[in-house]
Amino acid sequence: MLNDTALQTLFTEARTHNGWRDKPVTDEQLKQLYDLLKWGPTSANCSPVRIVFVKSPEAKEKLLACMNAGNIEKTKSAPVTAIIGMDMEFYEKLPQLFPHNPDARSWFAGNQPNIETTAMRNSSLQGGYFIMAARALGLDCAPMSGFNADKMNEAFFKGTPVKANFVCSIGYGDTSKLHPRGPRLAFEDACRIE
Amino acid sequence: MLNDTALQTLFTEARTHNGWRDKPVTDEQLKQLYDLLKWGPTSANCSPVRIVFVKSPEAKEKLLACMNAGNIEKTKSAPVTAIIGMDMEFYEKLPQLFPHNPDARSWFAGNQPNIETTAMRNSSLQGGYFIMAARALGLDCAPMSGFNADKMNEAFFKGTPVKANFVCSIGYGDTSKLHPRGPRLAFEDACRIE
Repeated sequence: MLNDTALQTLFTEARTHNGWRDKPVTDEQLKQLYDLLKWGPTSANCSPVRIVFVKSPEAKEKLLACMNAGNIEKTKSAPVTAIIGMDMEFYEKLPQLFPHNPDARSWFAGNQPNIETTAMRNSSLQGGYFIMAARALGLDCAPMSGFNADKMNEAFFKGTPVKANFVCSIGYGDTSKLHPRGPRLAFEDACRIE
Repeated sequence: MLNDTALQTLFTEARTHNGWRDKPVTDEQLKQLYDLLKWGPTSANCSPVRIVFVKSPEAKEKLLACMNAGNIEKTKSAPVTAIIGMDMEFYEKLPQLFPHNPDARSWFAGNQPNIETTAMRNSSLQGGYFIMAARALGLDCAPMSGFNADKMNEAFFKGTPVKANFVCSIGYGDTSKLHPRGPRLAFEDACRIE
């Protein structure tokens, strides 16, 4: 079991940030982040997440042109914004990722509803692992789904089977720019034990 | 930043389990689990996840009748299996959860594609937080999406706007029943830095 400080870092004290301190995130940290999140479970180990880490001014400009108005300023000031994408042909990698069942590819190929649900569910799960892994490494996060998905796919994934799911800025948050924390549902309102 | 032991517990040494030790999970642990995962971020704090913790023999029997054949034995032996559901009317709670913008409900109400994508993306993100929170509390996990969703919705969510997303057994894993760990994609095959 993790200690209280770790639980605070991951859950109880972690916040979604709106402003960023002027402190860079290194490429080495991005590799560490992936090398943690990749171990989180996905169905049949399908691992559909594909990530573009936007760091350069040129890539940032392309990204900002896709974001909703309310998300532009805060994305502009982030040292890195990750585009969390999903490979809609993830099943082509199952012979490599799920070698003990050679039939796994056939569960998906040609079954568009199953492909879409599996890609969305599992790349979002991996997005959850991304956020937890970033926090575990001492980074703050700002996930966002307010962007033009068609423009984003055209700008970053043209000619590939990858589609954007959501984006997440990472860096060192400026706590002076935090909003009050939103309430959460009580256990009784969200859960039951049967 | 978390220490190596914590990173092992959450990511690098954690495994999806197929067998379970005969050690119970208390209701108090389930409440602790929810009281961690609820703090993970969702878009507009929409928090669509709804969870049924299946513990009693009666509820377990209903659950097993919905699972795919390959998942029945391992689910039978788990002390608790959580049904991770999503409230397709999550937007009715936005006046409570996102009080600073009274318009938030109208972003969703009547917009079925936006409701479905938001519920799926965010309840799956919360599913990722669920798995990380369970591991943080010293529990092992076995997430599964191999079940009959219509039967599951009928058995556990009839007459409600909640739909099953995936299920996840929790308990103390029997390491003697682990399969060899599946490989993961290299950074270069899943990510790029722009």
